[in-house]
Amino acid sequence: MYILVINAGSSSVKYKLFDMKGNSVIAEGIVDRIGLEDAFLKHQTSNAKETKIDSDIDNYDKALKLITDILVDKENGVIDSLKSISAVGHRVVHGGEKASSSVLITPEVEEIIKECFDLAPLHNPPNMMGIEACKKILPHVPQVAVFDTAFHRTIPEKAYLYAIPYALYENYSIRRYGFHGTSHRYVASRACEILGKPEDKVKMITCHLGSGCSITAIKDGKSVDTSMGFTPLEGLIMGTRSGDIDPAIIFYLVERVGLSVSEVNNMLNKQSGLLGLSTVSRDMRDLEQEVSKGNKKAQISIECFAYRIRKYIGAYASAMAGLDVVVFTAGIGENSSKTRAMICDGMDFLDMKLDSEKNSQLEGEGIVSRDDSGVKILVIPTDEELMIARDTMEIAQG
Amino acid sequence: MYILVINAGSSSVKYKLFDMKGNSVIAEGIVDRIGLEDAFLKHQTSNAKETKIDSDIDNYDKALKLITDILVDKENGVIDSLKSISAVGHRVVHGGEKASSSVLITPEVEEIIKECFDLAPLHNPPNMMGIEACKKILPHVPQVAVFDTAFHRTIPEKAYLYAIPYALYENYSIRRYGFHGTSHRYVASRACEILGKPEDKVKMITCHLGSGCSITAIKDGKSVDTSMGFTPLEGLIMGTRSGDIDPAIIFYLVERVGLSVSEVNNMLNKQSGLLGLSTVSRDMRDLEQEVSKGNKKAQISIECFAYRIRKYIGAYASAMAGLDVVVFTAGIGENSSKTRAMICDGMDFLDMKLDSEKNSQLEGEGIVSRDDSGVKILVIPTDEELMIARDTMEIAQG
Repeated sequence: MYILVINAGSSSVKYKLFDMKGNSVIAEGIVDRIGLEDAFLKHQTSNAKETKIDSDIDNYDKALKLITDILVDKENGVIDSLKSISAVGHRVVHGGEKASSSVLITPEVEEIIKECFDLAPLHNPPNMMGIEACKKILPHVPQVAVFDTAFHRTIPEKAYLYAIPYALYENYSIRRYGFHGTSHRYVASRACEILGKPEDKVKMITCHLGSGCSITAIKDGKSVDTSMGFTPLEGLIMGTRSGDIDPAIIFYLVERVGLSVSEVNNMLNKQSGLLGLSTVSRDMRDLEQEVSKGNKKAQISIECFAYRIRKYIGAYASAMAGLDVVVFTAGIGENSSKTRAMICDGMDFLDMKLDSEKNSQLEGEGIVSRDDSGVKILVIPTDEELMIARDTMEIAQG
Repeated sequence: MYILVINAGSSSVKYKLFDMKGNSVIAEGIVDRIGLEDAFLKHQTSNAKETKIDSDIDNYDKALKLITDILVDKENGVIDSLKSISAVGHRVVHGGEKASSSVLITPEVEEIIKECFDLAPLHNPPNMMGIEACKKILPHVPQVAVFDTAFHRTIPEKAYLYAIPYALYENYSIRRYGFHGTSHRYVASRACEILGKPEDKVKMITCHLGSGCSITAIKDGKSVDTSMGFTPLEGLIMGTRSGDIDPAIIFYLVERVGLSVSEVNNMLNKQSGLLGLSTVSRDMRDLEQEVSKGNKKAQISIECFAYRIRKYIGAYASAMAGLDVVVFTAGIGENSSKTRAMICDGMDFLDMKLDSEKNSQLEGEGIVSRDDSGVKILVIPTDEELMIARDTMEIAQG
């Protein structure tokens, strides 16, 4: 069974074609610079063959046409006919309060996605364009929406309400939604597989540490709190995003420093985080190199990054009244053993003990806690596309 | 030895005269509505005699004149001559990065207070006016400044830096300062007295829960993190302040809902918190009454309030790599046994166990944890003025 996974962004469409026998990716690629000069398709098959096609691609219909053409192309393709594609899974960022799981796309679901345009203006509109383009090219194929927010729909009121006038929740839907849900769900499920634990009897914290970062408290398989909130700006320190700050800093920057609201918005999203603190890079690999050269601001930026995560781990242990498993995933979580060590240092009071040798030697997936650690610590490479493909298959099969 | 403690606010001056033998307050009062119509002095002596004087009080000099006059008044006074006052202690809200402890007021110290006008525009200017008025009336008496921020000067970089462009710290001093320092210091010190523990070997969390709320991690007698930040808006849910929110909510309210920056500022400071969530009151006593009548929004506002505190307790345990003592103080912390119970429920994983009987029956000061609880939980009425008086005496005595 072949499942096509589509992630349509503001000027690109990423795709992966899965053969669900063995969960393998048989072709993947990206159409980039849609509507811009120098637009192109880059396509790669499982036998590592890579193709680049430059083309005028001024809309999502053309992007999807290019993608489906190359999938069945005699030379570069991997399937004989588009009829082989059993279903298409779409990443959709925001499902608001209505979407609590992945779902077959119907006119009602499209309405839900459109209702969330205002909540995710950079993401939901292109997500919708991707869906529309796919429907035209593959009209008889089931289309499935997999929402970044859906996994967090189980978060209770006390954790999703902000302490602002209640009418802002009622009238403008301002509340915590959370993001990266597909990633948190994937690694949580995989952790239970690895540990042989039932998903519904585990207190787990999953740390998705990429260029965007979020951390989720998962109790008995359900998200009960997460660090990203109304938007992906809140929570952990990220590559260029501030995460949590005193909200009054915004008023100070506008009223006393004289910046405009949109300048501050841009600053907190694009010039803050690791980049803002270190002043040299948003990339943890660069920062670790800088630290080895004695760069103090790089050092403090990593310390702040790790310290924030430590605090969230303690906070979420409190939220769940205990802790059994911590999972690290995404770029930094999977690859920076130093950051993992800083986060876990001195967490013995939670019975959470990192094995420094396992931690520094691990490649890929594995357990990095000591055998005598009550809290198991794992590193699990995330795979959001596989999760989307699985959901899509399940829904397409009814 | 008599010490006068002055707390000069934006339109009021509160005062207490301490007899340091026995730490007793022999007279106290307030001059209110300075510069407004219907200004008055309310004065009370330790034998419970209360006096109210209506008067034109258009500046702080007149306010201080009224206060000092009534202290030596034949009928309502408590001392024979102003010469009996050995020193004056002033509450000063903001000491910036320079003030790390209470200090004798010199021209250099006055400069520090003035440098922080921009950081605390509602507080430091009247604090300074109170100091100037006192210097005129009591020119030969030592004047001491006790800063709300000073106790938090030991917070390390990783906890006081925000992940925003580093230049904002360098050029505009934007960092975590923390407030309520005098209260946190007082109850921390008192907790060690009660428990017979040395202050420099304790991991403690102090919860100041009044109309303003903050929580502090105190390791070995030093503040290492606190929830209020650059301003008193950050952190816990308060009577009318939101505490932590996704900063992007501000951008949404301005750019999409159409509020002005100052409207949002006002909303987050004055219409949020318990009041905003419950829609009925900022006062925990009212909310508990509403809950007993079945008011669901009142119930959820208290749940959010307690949940936020629980998370901070876990976070600060992580920050200190452990926890020995938790102290509750200020209006809600001292009086709402129900809130304390909600906060402590299910914290066994930290070896923190509330004794529900002790908790519900306590009046005043005491230990409310179970005997088998590793983490001791205490309720201690705060006394910032006594702390100011003590600091002032110590400094005045050299």
